[in-house]
Amino acid sequence: MKKNKKISEQYIINKYLRKLHWNKIESFDFKNDAAYLKVPKNKKLVVTNDTILESTDFFKNDPPESIANKIITYNLSDISSMGANPYAYTLSLCLPKNTTDSWLNKFTKKLNFLQKKYNFFLIGGDLSNSNKIIISSNFFGFAPKDILLNRIGAKINDDIWITGNLGDSSIGLEIRRKKIKTNNIYKKFFLKKYLFPQHCSLGNKINNLATSAIDLSDGFYGDLEKLINEKKIGALINSNLIPFSTKTQQLIRNKIINLNYLLSSGDNYELLFTSNSKNSSTINRIALNYNIKITKVGRIIEKKGIHLDGKKIKIINKSFQHFF
Amino acid sequence: MKKNKKISEQYIINKYLRKLHWNKIESFDFKNDAAYLKVPKNKKLVVTNDTILESTDFFKNDPPESIANKIITYNLSDISSMGANPYAYTLSLCLPKNTTDSWLNKFTKKLNFLQKKYNFFLIGGDLSNSNKIIISSNFFGFAPKDILLNRIGAKINDDIWITGNLGDSSIGLEIRRKKIKTNNIYKKFFLKKYLFPQHCSLGNKINNLATSAIDLSDGFYGDLEKLINEKKIGALINSNLIPFSTKTQQLIRNKIINLNYLLSSGDNYELLFTSNSKNSSTINRIALNYNIKITKVGRIIEKKGIHLDGKKIKIINKSFQHFF
Repeated sequence: MKKNKKISEQYIINKYLRKLHWNKIESFDFKNDAAYLKVPKNKKLVVTNDTILESTDFFKNDPPESIANKIITYNLSDISSMGANPYAYTLSLCLPKNTTDSWLNKFTKKLNFLQKKYNFFLIGGDLSNSNKIIISSNFFGFAPKDILLNRIGAKINDDIWITGNLGDSSIGLEIRRKKIKTNNIYKKFFLKKYLFPQHCSLGNKINNLATSAIDLSDGFYGDLEKLINEKKIGALINSNLIPFSTKTQQLIRNKIINLNYLLSSGDNYELLFTSNSKNSSTINRIALNYNIKITKVGRIIEKKGIHLDGKKIKIINKSFQHFF
Repeated sequence: MKKNKKISEQYIINKYLRKLHWNKIESFDFKNDAAYLKVPKNKKLVVTNDTILESTDFFKNDPPESIANKIITYNLSDISSMGANPYAYTLSLCLPKNTTDSWLNKFTKKLNFLQKKYNFFLIGGDLSNSNKIIISSNFFGFAPKDILLNRIGAKINDDIWITGNLGDSSIGLEIRRKKIKTNNIYKKFFLKKYLFPQHCSLGNKINNLATSAIDLSDGFYGDLEKLINEKKIGALINSNLIPFSTKTQQLIRNKIINLNYLLSSGDNYELLFTSNSKNSSTINRIALNYNIKITKVGRIIEKKGIHLDGKKIKIINKSFQHFF
């Protein structure tokens, strides 16, 4: 890629970032020291914050589209788990000096693609120069005024649900790290899951039915524990019901990967939620309407801890730690 | 400092960061994927974003209190220039592996001190591990619903005002970089201004009187240009009126530093604003009430550009660039 000497803060804002504010009045065309947020009367404003770093959340030469996809997915996943709809976001970009037009073009095109797909815009941000790429974002979303889905609310006998499949993205990371070897078809499948994880947008559609919800960014065990720990209740999980892609199932059968790894590893942006069993068919119908895979994997019980097929789990790799 | 092996993400949150949410319900005790923001009916919610990086905004071994002071000051300065009151903030902390308890203790104590002083709390955030310290923050503030001070609004014949003194902090940086040599008393004075810059909180007190406002983070010339460029008007500045501390005046007299440098250099968190001259005495009275130094340095004119003592300025170092 050709190094572009014209690249300055104002150049990046004018050429690439201004396209992302969609002329929304809240952004002031990025001409003020701050932006403002318009909150509809019947809504609650939700805010979340996620940061991704080169060498931690992605590799140095990963496609810019993948990096854009990750910062958006991580945040949209949190917005969804709060039962909210995305509204706007701020972006703090720390970029190396040799960032090219080509990189910026691909990165911001992907941002705009995702903005259009999920209907949110860039409200403001900050540009800095750093050795490694570091991107931090605050996302804003709207939840109904009187309902706010959160982690605390699971009740005994509630069903435990998972959206999508577990583990594909973290297997992709292991392949990337050359810890797992597979054939090319498998490699391509899992690498795509690692580079372009998708969040599950079911949250705002079931916010009146779920009693608690969380996204699986820190792994199934770690995140499930957060739903039961606060209330000192437990979870009974049927391992046969846990949803995996056919390719992951094959890797389990071939003993290339094991269940414990898949249930402990993070980087999954599906939703885990609980709901009274009377809502079961309604939830299935909603998921079907939106073409979202959904699986009931167990239920909340009185006995503390996570019980896999009746056996209490000793969580060794408790949860995926983003820090240290 | 002793290296502490216990330091994990959860440890930092529990021991240091939880103290900063003040048990506000909006933060959910940091136990959810997101927080929410409560906006009073008669208020407008303002958001701003600033990021500071080791080697750019501060040096590796700068006191943790100074780093805390900077991330807060930079953001509060933007909130003030929008005529708003601070409400809450998110914090994305990227910290090296060898971060100590001592560092975290000093850093969060200073945050809490500033939170109490200006009345805002920590609503959420994110922790990551990086080689260098990088801190990004989104600040939220409230402005009156029907007034929002911003950069576009200066009118011909408006007075041009500056709060505080210009240049002290950037002289401190030059001393730090060993580009300027002074005696120890001067050194101590300017280094303190560099390490602990203060924002000017006048913004929300004059939001109904000012026609435009900006904080001077990018330098007097650069920021003044932003107030006049949009409307294609000009500014006539009287160089004799520009406020400097007595120590800076002495450095100018001794030709250690020159006026052009002081008017071009950033890192100043005073306010620059314009107002109809009929408000002059009211503004002076308000500033006096809050013990804030304020100086009328010129007026808005029809002739484009910045004119210093009648002579049009060719801005070479147009404005302080945070990027590249």
